[in-house]
Amino acid sequence: MRPEVLAGLGDDAAWLKTAASTLITCDLLIEDVHFLRELHPPRLLGRKALSVNLSDLAAMAGIPQYALLAAAFPRDLTLEYADELMTGFLEVALEHKVELIGGDTTASDKLCLCVTVLGTPAADKPVLRSGAKPGDEVWVSGSLGDAALGFELLKKSRAGQLDISDFHHSSLLVRHFDPSPRVEAGSRLAHLAHAMIDLSDGLLSDLGRILEESGKSQTLRAVIELERVPLSPDFREYYGGKPLSSEEALSLMLTGGEDYELLFTAPASAAPPLKKISADLGLAFTQVGKIEAGKVREITLLDRTGRLVPPPRPWFEHFPNPKGIPSE
Amino acid sequence: MRPEVLAGLGDDAAWLKTAASTLITCDLLIEDVHFLRELHPPRLLGRKALSVNLSDLAAMAGIPQYALLAAAFPRDLTLEYADELMTGFLEVALEHKVELIGGDTTASDKLCLCVTVLGTPAADKPVLRSGAKPGDEVWVSGSLGDAALGFELLKKSRAGQLDISDFHHSSLLVRHFDPSPRVEAGSRLAHLAHAMIDLSDGLLSDLGRILEESGKSQTLRAVIELERVPLSPDFREYYGGKPLSSEEALSLMLTGGEDYELLFTAPASAAPPLKKISADLGLAFTQVGKIEAGKVREITLLDRTGRLVPPPRPWFEHFPNPKGIPSE
Repeated sequence: MRPEVLAGLGDDAAWLKTAASTLITCDLLIEDVHFLRELHPPRLLGRKALSVNLSDLAAMAGIPQYALLAAAFPRDLTLEYADELMTGFLEVALEHKVELIGGDTTASDKLCLCVTVLGTPAADKPVLRSGAKPGDEVWVSGSLGDAALGFELLKKSRAGQLDISDFHHSSLLVRHFDPSPRVEAGSRLAHLAHAMIDLSDGLLSDLGRILEESGKSQTLRAVIELERVPLSPDFREYYGGKPLSSEEALSLMLTGGEDYELLFTAPASAAPPLKKISADLGLAFTQVGKIEAGKVREITLLDRTGRLVPPPRPWFEHFPNPKGIPSE
Repeated sequence: MRPEVLAGLGDDAAWLKTAASTLITCDLLIEDVHFLRELHPPRLLGRKALSVNLSDLAAMAGIPQYALLAAAFPRDLTLEYADELMTGFLEVALEHKVELIGGDTTASDKLCLCVTVLGTPAADKPVLRSGAKPGDEVWVSGSLGDAALGFELLKKSRAGQLDISDFHHSSLLVRHFDPSPRVEAGSRLAHLAHAMIDLSDGLLSDLGRILEESGKSQTLRAVIELERVPLSPDFREYYGGKPLSSEEALSLMLTGGEDYELLFTAPASAAPPLKKISADLGLAFTQVGKIEAGKVREITLLDRTGRLVPPPRPWFEHFPNPKGIPSE
């Protein structure tokens, strides 16, 4: 137990000694919307429930410290399932020195997890979405589209079109089941990034948010060079080595969501220290485009010859509901 | 917007200037477990979602400051319903000077609300569950059992056994639909109460928690005089003026839950200042029993002649699920 936790589990509220500045975020994970219970191993679901919230803290250049877990468990859930789920949650908590200080449990029809995470900025202030400037370079960590493709494969498996136990690209499934929050990378960017967000909804959507929040006094646009968007070997191979020729691949890598990579902007002068951090962490940082002053807020996609590419049709990131209406 | 909110809605996490010590709590409200959507007016549901969390802060003698709302909305929910719900939530936020600083929205089958509330102790430290001492008097605010009886009446109405539009004891329904968190009372008890909890699960269950948390070094028991338990005029009248002769009434007032009143222990010397606070706030404080050192942790119920009364069978506080298994 962290010495700052003066009262944790077992009272009406947790009581903490707090730093001068606190970051706080919460996210819901709902069965049949964000995950399929029969396909998502419970330990990995528990891991993911915390990881996606740590990713939000990472995107603020924050250091996570505490978590609250509110869980609604269906009555048919076994104790073993709940144990596995908690094991996964606590594994990730331990990996990131996060202490579980509170929560709530109740019954429900569908499994529902609501996680709140508190932390503190790694530097004297966090990196917001609103700091991007004209001339900034646009960077992403890791590779994009893997989690979304993994999710597509799961849906194919569920529909009987693919046997995932035979599937050799398991890295794609892992990216969906058990994303890695880029906590250390985020905190190391505290003094380098002008603006940052985690890629939960896809590059186009999340970059749009940076342009919106950063463009209040001056309209900003972004230019993305598609050839630069980092793709994993398995992603490339799934699309026969030519992902940019596939409309599905383009959609997944640009609008797929759930990458939980960092998207950030930084001045050109930041490139050398970024290379250093990337090497230290063994995590790719790739410059994919830049920010410009513009007349309208827009994201321009260019192919390698410099020609405009129309934005792909958005990919629906969540499972369709029983009524067939796409989930938000 | 409070000046301490450095970044609120619209970033990956909220960023706050924090006091030296922080209280934090979260609660889930799930359709068909905690409320019936067709019977609970959406504005009152929004109010209740925040109020039940403020009640947890009140029970720590805390002053609430910030809230996060994570909501999963069924796809058949109208925009008008969601607006009403938010209106109610923000009404209570305004009443208690609480600022909404973050949250999440997603789709789901059942309406699900997860609220996180942050605050700070009214004094240099909060009142925990663990401070009760032998010789303390046991006090409750307000009246007990009303919300549980209101909920019973709603279930009767749903089963066609009662027309609640005709029902003249609407105060009982209001106690279920729109509980009042005892925030000001809680903070005024910061220097008087030894131990405190909010009555969410019923007097016996919540007093048991105080005995458990306070009894780690010395086993504690409690004696409750049933005649002293404060009941509202409508509750008494519903049971023909003789609630203590009704097993249902006994069960509702002692195990009913959702009163959201404060249950606290205090030394006998606190009685005069407690009377003063009660008069200031127009909120009854009633001494219902006392804490003693004991050989086993137990709660003894006495009638007015001093005879032992057996504890009533617990009343199931939530709606039975479709499979007929009681909810937790």
